[in-house]
Amino acid sequence: MPKLILLRHGQSQWNLENRFTGWVDVNLTAEGEAQATRGGELIKEQGIEIDLAFTSVLTRAIRTCNLALDAAGQSYVPVIKDWRLNERHYGGLTGLDKAETAAIHGEDQVKIWRRSYDVPPPELEAGSAYDFAADRRYAGSVLPLTESLKTTLDRVLPFWESTIVPELKNGETVLVAAHGNSIRAIIKLLFDLGDAAILEVEVPTGNPLVIELSDTLRPMSAHYLDVDRANPLPVLDALSS
Amino acid sequence: MPKLILLRHGQSQWNLENRFTGWVDVNLTAEGEAQATRGGELIKEQGIEIDLAFTSVLTRAIRTCNLALDAAGQSYVPVIKDWRLNERHYGGLTGLDKAETAAIHGEDQVKIWRRSYDVPPPELEAGSAYDFAADRRYAGSVLPLTESLKTTLDRVLPFWESTIVPELKNGETVLVAAHGNSIRAIIKLLFDLGDAAILEVEVPTGNPLVIELSDTLRPMSAHYLDVDRANPLPVLDALSS
Repeated sequence: MPKLILLRHGQSQWNLENRFTGWVDVNLTAEGEAQATRGGELIKEQGIEIDLAFTSVLTRAIRTCNLALDAAGQSYVPVIKDWRLNERHYGGLTGLDKAETAAIHGEDQVKIWRRSYDVPPPELEAGSAYDFAADRRYAGSVLPLTESLKTTLDRVLPFWESTIVPELKNGETVLVAAHGNSIRAIIKLLFDLGDAAILEVEVPTGNPLVIELSDTLRPMSAHYLDVDRANPLPVLDALSS
Repeated sequence: MPKLILLRHGQSQWNLENRFTGWVDVNLTAEGEAQATRGGELIKEQGIEIDLAFTSVLTRAIRTCNLALDAAGQSYVPVIKDWRLNERHYGGLTGLDKAETAAIHGEDQVKIWRRSYDVPPPELEAGSAYDFAADRRYAGSVLPLTESLKTTLDRVLPFWESTIVPELKNGETVLVAAHGNSIRAIIKLLFDLGDAAILEVEVPTGNPLVIELSDTLRPMSAHYLDVDRANPLPVLDALSS
């Protein structure tokens, strides 16, 4: 039976400071490391054997993946790193905190961005402090300059279909250690959620979400391993009951 | 210009206890973790950009690889894990310390094993505490039951030639985070050392050995990044001068 474990990276420094992080390669806090390790311990306690893991090319997700596999006693599992599992690219908002964003763009505009599925922030300016074009981890790739959740899903989708889906269809247990919005994209695809419904989904950090799938990858059950830190998620509650 | 960085895993618990470890999945000590991190910091200080990393399926090498990449600020580098980079399999000696080995097999026999290139210890008994046959990380592979340095090299060689050599010939900078004897095998191949000469080579833990290669993979220079912890190695001294 195919099994998918979605694991949002542990708390990062900018989660803590409430800044738009996106593709900035901010590291985990000590609390974030502990969350990742705890996630791995829960995987071990459940006796889950991971066959293959996927993560982004951002340090906070990669380290979460490695810390969780270490704690699960499964460091040897193959790990594939791909930028298409990166966090949503926040464009010109990158690096700003809540107050700065409101001061520059106004509260109303911030609300529009927050509540919309397909309205991207302004593009990142070329040559800005957060220009990723020269970063060698993206060499040879055509990169976005900003993303909505919709366009995030648009680049997660081909990777999901070409690389992760075949493993799941093969009956494998797959870990995806990624980010709030790349995980939302996968949840939207898997549960066939509407554009509004997915915006309500808040994935907790470092808490493995285990989804059991049918052979045709229909979700049969879904539950967080750390029940005390599980955000309510109606579509999952329905499945779990 | 192709560049190969050989990194022996940091100190493990059984290094400390002087027990034959081989394929037993012993973890790093805190000192071993610090060595791995220091190795990565030295890679960063030298401005070395790694394109691809290889490691074994043993936790102490994988964690060394990950800790070094993290400390180098290069967590995003692809890492390939393969059992053919494992430590030498010590067969029936696995788990024994020096005194136990001498008590069971006699000092003379221990000297023979220690000083020979091609005399393997007795085979591991099936069903022993250290039988790896049921370990899922080796599923589908034909495993040795004991290894000499020679037979270790025999299984490193096809992996080296089929997987690492093409990357180096492509001009890549490759990290191999592995074990005393799998690294010895690579050094023997690369420097064309004799069977006796390779036994004199002691690779220090957690100290990156940087080897610059010609297009045809002839070693042009070789040096340890941590000069204070570099063991003397005549063949390397000759190259470095």
